[in-house]
Amino acid sequence: MKSRLFTPGPTPVPETVMLRMASPIIHHRHPEFRAVMERVNRNLQYVFQTSRPVLTLACSGTGAMEAAFVSCFSPGETVIAVNGGKFGERWVQMPRAFGLNSVEIRIPWGHAVSAEQVLDTLHTHPGAKAVVLTQSETSTGTATDIQTIARAVREHSDALVCVDGITSVGAHELRFDEWGIDLCVTGSQKGLMIPPGLAFVALSDRAIERMERSTLPKFYFDLQRYLRAHASADSPWTPAVSLILGLDEALEMIRAEGIEAVWSRHRRLALGLRAGFRALGIRLFSESPSYAVTPVWIPEGVDWTAFNRALKTGNGITVAGGQGDFAGKIFRVSHLGYYDDLDMVTVIAAIERALASVGYSFPSGSGVAATQRALLGIT
Amino acid sequence: MKSRLFTPGPTPVPETVMLRMASPIIHHRHPEFRAVMERVNRNLQYVFQTSRPVLTLACSGTGAMEAAFVSCFSPGETVIAVNGGKFGERWVQMPRAFGLNSVEIRIPWGHAVSAEQVLDTLHTHPGAKAVVLTQSETSTGTATDIQTIARAVREHSDALVCVDGITSVGAHELRFDEWGIDLCVTGSQKGLMIPPGLAFVALSDRAIERMERSTLPKFYFDLQRYLRAHASADSPWTPAVSLILGLDEALEMIRAEGIEAVWSRHRRLALGLRAGFRALGIRLFSESPSYAVTPVWIPEGVDWTAFNRALKTGNGITVAGGQGDFAGKIFRVSHLGYYDDLDMVTVIAAIERALASVGYSFPSGSGVAATQRALLGIT
Repeated sequence: MKSRLFTPGPTPVPETVMLRMASPIIHHRHPEFRAVMERVNRNLQYVFQTSRPVLTLACSGTGAMEAAFVSCFSPGETVIAVNGGKFGERWVQMPRAFGLNSVEIRIPWGHAVSAEQVLDTLHTHPGAKAVVLTQSETSTGTATDIQTIARAVREHSDALVCVDGITSVGAHELRFDEWGIDLCVTGSQKGLMIPPGLAFVALSDRAIERMERSTLPKFYFDLQRYLRAHASADSPWTPAVSLILGLDEALEMIRAEGIEAVWSRHRRLALGLRAGFRALGIRLFSESPSYAVTPVWIPEGVDWTAFNRALKTGNGITVAGGQGDFAGKIFRVSHLGYYDDLDMVTVIAAIERALASVGYSFPSGSGVAATQRALLGIT
Repeated sequence: MKSRLFTPGPTPVPETVMLRMASPIIHHRHPEFRAVMERVNRNLQYVFQTSRPVLTLACSGTGAMEAAFVSCFSPGETVIAVNGGKFGERWVQMPRAFGLNSVEIRIPWGHAVSAEQVLDTLHTHPGAKAVVLTQSETSTGTATDIQTIARAVREHSDALVCVDGITSVGAHELRFDEWGIDLCVTGSQKGLMIPPGLAFVALSDRAIERMERSTLPKFYFDLQRYLRAHASADSPWTPAVSLILGLDEALEMIRAEGIEAVWSRHRRLALGLRAGFRALGIRLFSESPSYAVTPVWIPEGVDWTAFNRALKTGNGITVAGGQGDFAGKIFRVSHLGYYDDLDMVTVIAAIERALASVGYSFPSGSGVAATQRALLGIT
């Protein structure tokens, strides 16, 4: 049976990227690799829409977020972090591990933080050095309006605007320079369409200046070392060569499609899938849905384990279950990265089949028809 | 022209490993990946010759060394680190970045530390919590007798025996349990024959106990999190799936050959190559040569840049230059990982050709003949 992956990381890797990663290994000090790295650095700037450096690290997205924290802040400093899901929760906990005072803005799962809530918290904590936001919270499929909040924070404080863009970069509109973002992190196995193992940090001049005053202990994750190496398309430690070759290929694909076209494709796929779910009588989980991943409530009477088994073993489809309190109550379908219109028809067709097999009743074909029409813009 | 890589990391990746990494990505929570991870964990224990857990991290070898330091020690504690080259120097500097007191045993490049030197330093610093040794120092091609030193340290102190096995694991005999090692780190792009991006830490029970008292701040590199996840073949953060699939393939190759056979192959290749160099009148750099990489003095009258250009553009061969004070004075040929007898004949043949092209005079064919005979055991 064919296997098809619809999880929000790892996401499917394009065939050309897999082939590129399977090419003979080259040495990271060889001129051939230097040329690759220069192109990768330029294309990462394009993806983040920034003229500032975007650094490549060998670690997961969590590692890159840690690099940002330990490189820019000092013990005792306050950061405000929004917790609206499993990853937001991590960005509250992580600064505490390093002796920072993290102030939590707790948001119910499936809801997005507003600029007002952020400003209120900044008002109570005027000395806060940073506001940490997640553009697309993977655990809840919820999008946060970074543009509006970044503008508000910039107007009222000197706090750095730090964005977890792990499941949003390459899916949601994000304009690092224009929106006044200071730090943005992403991982390789998401919108960038390569396997896990690399993570990226974009930095504003303000963030770079903060590094000079940071006293937290650091070595591997010291971004000043990466910045110095970046100037000559180098890296302080051995880079993950094969993943970077794959990245080069994937970034060239994104550049050929155009970043605005990539963003609007993700929006179209998300809306198409949602139309299919609605036609099947299945409710969306998020009040502010992301274009990267769509979580939905499991319909009453449907058992998640049986349904997931039917999806996986009967149809070869892997989706993501709910996390935390929502395990067994919601499931999440990803459309982040290397997906097209027909993939959305495919996944809703498989979901129809699996639902039917566990006794959920609906007009067969209503989901695929609704998805098809929405993707084509037929109302 | 064919390209051939003789650098001590990245090392060549076997074709079957490249193909495995090019297979469709699977989700890291899928039972199929769990089964891979269980086999990988068992095979890593075999390679390290240990019954204790060997943890897999997404980072370079430097990151794994940092994980060991921040997980086992606390600010103000003393560690003794041997600096006999570029990597040893790093293990002196890194603990200082985290507020540890690192006592340096400085060894001239190309020489190995002795058990007596280590014991003398332990005598002067009886409270030292660790001794950090590099089994094969990549910058100097020098091997250290870990077995003897580990035994001596164990007899005289409670200091943990920490081994940088980055270019030795899978090349030099190493018996983690039997030799009483507490911590051993390696990277993926060395003896394990896969691209860079993964690193590994083997831990003794004593090292695991120390973690409970460590107060250094940590999150991504917190080995207690990895240990808890390891119990169910899981990892705390998204693992580098494609590299781990490649690792699975490479470890199965090592198991099929047998770890003792892998060690003796590396010894044979090193001795074969050295015989070729001697026949060409080229002197070895190290007084205690490693089986992973062979550095030699560039003969008088030979210009490194011209010779290296002849090797690279005339013969498609990439070797490593000298580092630090020895740049332009020595060059290093690697035989670490996926190499066989014929590769040694190949590289010495190319070196003969490049030397001849830059005017170095010797009987043509004397190097290849000597390497061939040494490899065959003909005296």
